[in-house]
Amino acid sequence: MATAGKVIRCRAAVAWAPGKLSVEEVEVAPPKAGEVRIKLVATGICRTDEHLLQGCFPNAEFPVIPGHEGAGIVESVGEGVTSMKPVWRILLCLPLHLHGIDFMTNLTPPSALHSIKYKYLRLLHSISEPQHLLPDKTTQYTVAKIDAAAPLDKVCLFGCGFSTGYGAAINTAKVKPGSTCAVFGLGGIGLSVVMGCKAAGASRIIGVDINKDKFAKAKELGATDCINPRDFQKPIQEVLTEMTGQGVDYSFEAIGHKDTMIAALASCNMSTGVCVMIGELDSGSEISIDPTLLLTGRTWKGTVLGGWKTRECIPKLVSSYLEKKFNSDLLITHTLPFAKVNEGFELLRAGKSIRTVLLF
Amino acid sequence: MATAGKVIRCRAAVAWAPGKLSVEEVEVAPPKAGEVRIKLVATGICRTDEHLLQGCFPNAEFPVIPGHEGAGIVESVGEGVTSMKPVWRILLCLPLHLHGIDFMTNLTPPSALHSIKYKYLRLLHSISEPQHLLPDKTTQYTVAKIDAAAPLDKVCLFGCGFSTGYGAAINTAKVKPGSTCAVFGLGGIGLSVVMGCKAAGASRIIGVDINKDKFAKAKELGATDCINPRDFQKPIQEVLTEMTGQGVDYSFEAIGHKDTMIAALASCNMSTGVCVMIGELDSGSEISIDPTLLLTGRTWKGTVLGGWKTRECIPKLVSSYLEKKFNSDLLITHTLPFAKVNEGFELLRAGKSIRTVLLF
Repeated sequence: MATAGKVIRCRAAVAWAPGKLSVEEVEVAPPKAGEVRIKLVATGICRTDEHLLQGCFPNAEFPVIPGHEGAGIVESVGEGVTSMKPVWRILLCLPLHLHGIDFMTNLTPPSALHSIKYKYLRLLHSISEPQHLLPDKTTQYTVAKIDAAAPLDKVCLFGCGFSTGYGAAINTAKVKPGSTCAVFGLGGIGLSVVMGCKAAGASRIIGVDINKDKFAKAKELGATDCINPRDFQKPIQEVLTEMTGQGVDYSFEAIGHKDTMIAALASCNMSTGVCVMIGELDSGSEISIDPTLLLTGRTWKGTVLGGWKTRECIPKLVSSYLEKKFNSDLLITHTLPFAKVNEGFELLRAGKSIRTVLLF
Repeated sequence: MATAGKVIRCRAAVAWAPGKLSVEEVEVAPPKAGEVRIKLVATGICRTDEHLLQGCFPNAEFPVIPGHEGAGIVESVGEGVTSMKPVWRILLCLPLHLHGIDFMTNLTPPSALHSIKYKYLRLLHSISEPQHLLPDKTTQYTVAKIDAAAPLDKVCLFGCGFSTGYGAAINTAKVKPGSTCAVFGLGGIGLSVVMGCKAAGASRIIGVDINKDKFAKAKELGATDCINPRDFQKPIQEVLTEMTGQGVDYSFEAIGHKDTMIAALASCNMSTGVCVMIGELDSGSEISIDPTLLLTGRTWKGTVLGGWKTRECIPKLVSSYLEKKFNSDLLITHTLPFAKVNEGFELLRAGKSIRTVLLF
């Protein structure tokens, strides 16, 4: 592209402190060795961005430019990058190898804009890595080339939210045909879990949420039953056990609350049940369980990006989407221009949106 | 047998209250519908018996006759029992369907001797079930016919301890060839885990115990390294992570302490590690973890009787023993006459025995 090698000025949504984002003009340097500069086309607003904005990650430094569910086009590549080429259509993916230990250390302030990773930029996006990672290893994990026919304003969700939920059912739990599932939390992730359970052939998918406005969408996507814990006098795990006889085969927690994590674990079959934890608690939180919940035979596991190997699997997921094997478009309730980024977050906070996509 | 249909007088080790066992003469009624009366030949002393004796199970009623790792011969069967026949050699197995919810409700006092389930009897053993279970379903789960050539004074361990540890590696964790394992606790269960890891082809098996007297036996059975947490300044999970680069592939907790349960979980690979909890905490105990331990991708699970299906699998395990595929005899450090039952428990408490077998 004509911009290759030049510093680019573009808009970014910057959080100078926890709270609100302010749209400002920033500069993005040309990609250095091992880096890729991306022209963003669309991005989804994910609750992890909101957690970051609200200061839930104590190690995150402000100012910060959040955003990680981006879809775009490779603008130029730095020295030594052989696995990415200009004008390829790509998805930014949650970097697996950085999650957990290194995750927070990679949210860098605008003062080091050549190395920001997660952000809303009007035009271009540059990615770099901590010193200890090999140059090209970065793009190996965080950028995946996808089918040129894919609509970027739809598949941007595949960089995090949709893939996480769908993969939690398909890869992490390995839901079997004819099985019974319970999904706690019917937001963007939980609904993606519902779609994954359906695709895997589950015969019963029970959605659990205290916001009954979510039920219609959940049923549209595959839930066979939806229940509101507030409608019952007894703990929801007892309700689910009674509904299913011996508890569900698979349970998923897509909220991030201690109580629902324990309820999800207790809801699955005591001998053979598998519970997948997807929701994130605040950093440093602890959760207490009666170990008997596990000792009788249950399996409890977590998932990162739904267990997909980024560069290898996400493009295949995009192809499945193009083949209409599932319809993740139904998760997108709002599409807004980038300038309305704050409105997008307000919709999320009010529980009025499932996924909002911003267009650059 | 000549005793069929008659009340039998025999010796039993009775705990009238938490603490010591007293050997007394008791009566055992003929088996009722769905029951099987067993002539016990040998039994292992398991730590679960000790927990029961010490009053760790608040729902257990005293007086009680403990003991559940028995091997013997079918003396007679009650009405409707078609799957067991007199003089068959059998193992008593921890009843899977009773573990957890119903486990404690089945420890009945000597006043109902026709229905005691777990005990040391000099001669005969009768089994019955709660009313809600079908007659023959009982023996389906708690008694397994084994090869007549099996030495009962050796394979009695297969009814609980050996099968639990060995199966935790083989069935629950599904240890893969070439993998790295850590085993917390090198008692009878932990050593059986070591044997299971070795049989599964693990290339590195690290034993962890604060009693270094256990190390020689562990190495004899397959451990490649043995470490004592007291020899290090840092937490043992950090030691294991440094020893292995990214943590072990599989970790096992065979002690029953909160701290070691968390350490075992933290010791396995953050993205792909599998931790199996085998040790039991006191009933009602809670364990607190940082959910990030799971969210990065670890799997945490429990096991009951090592995941074997009693009647189907335990006889095959006995056959494997007869084919010398493993040598569980090495776990038996002491063999005592039944009258010395209290001495057997003293050896266990002093950490001087691995498994003691009592002969009737």
